[in-house]
Amino acid sequence: MIKTPVCQIVGYKNSGKTAFMSRLIEYYTSKGFTVGALKHHGHGGEPAAMDARETDSGKHSNAGATISGVQGESRLQLSFDHNSPMDLTDILRMYELSGPDIILVEGYKDASFPKVVLLKESDDEQLLQDVTHTVAIGSRNKDLLHNRKLYTIPLLEIEDRIDDIATYIQNKVF
Amino acid sequence: MIKTPVCQIVGYKNSGKTAFMSRLIEYYTSKGFTVGALKHHGHGGEPAAMDARETDSGKHSNAGATISGVQGESRLQLSFDHNSPMDLTDILRMYELSGPDIILVEGYKDASFPKVVLLKESDDEQLLQDVTHTVAIGSRNKDLLHNRKLYTIPLLEIEDRIDDIATYIQNKVF
Repeated sequence: MIKTPVCQIVGYKNSGKTAFMSRLIEYYTSKGFTVGALKHHGHGGEPAAMDARETDSGKHSNAGATISGVQGESRLQLSFDHNSPMDLTDILRMYELSGPDIILVEGYKDASFPKVVLLKESDDEQLLQDVTHTVAIGSRNKDLLHNRKLYTIPLLEIEDRIDDIATYIQNKVF
Repeated sequence: MIKTPVCQIVGYKNSGKTAFMSRLIEYYTSKGFTVGALKHHGHGGEPAAMDARETDSGKHSNAGATISGVQGESRLQLSFDHNSPMDLTDILRMYELSGPDIILVEGYKDASFPKVVLLKESDDEQLLQDVTHTVAIGSRNKDLLHNRKLYTIPLLEIEDRIDDIATYIQNKVF
């Protein structure tokens, strides 16, 4: 059970997820919230190994450690290697131990936290059928925005009006 | 409360902590254990920022996220930025969520988990007074090893006889 408010940002490739999420992070941080951010590396990709052989935690990892971490004065870095992907809820529990006010999650379409679905164009609408718990649709597409009344879920502009959608998410999810 | 067995490796600078810990990790991994490893970056140092601007999690971090993470198929990387260092116990709780069999911790002299104290030379003996929960002394120093009977705590060789000290730790701590 995750007690911290979580909002997912989902969308097909090149729908602007990372840029939108970064702007939300900036917005909420400017409002005094601490924000945790998690991204799913799509298509079987991997984050680059943290720091190879040169560092001590790299040596621990090379020796076979399934978790290698290093804590400095103001930064903690952890790297987990697993045979099967860790469960999103377990990852979010780790986040909670550090006590962020809110957690924004990029990707993980199958998860069931409140979601903003990004649509680049009307062809992307299938995604609305494939996910659950959608609280808003976000887009930069002028045609989609013009036809926003066709949708039963609020469709909001994500570039020029970041404050509006951030406030909407805040009221709906936090 | 941490349920996973934890063993700390402490010692002054250049006492061989990282090399010894890497050999323990290799040993326990070869015996079928999964091992979590954590290192304290001494002297106010910091782990390098995970991945700067180029990556999406770097962008999240630059936008102000206090935790930025990325999960791939078989690797999860998390980076926590904090004003005050996170508590060791909270970090170990994060490790436990990933379920390692044992956790080896390099440094954190003030913590109170079972410890192996590494002595490079007899001048290092002050460290034995400064830490608690010492279960073994480890050394490569021939004079110290020769005089091992002077110590009330078992003094074991850490280079050629890694199996002996690893088994000793296993019986004492796990």
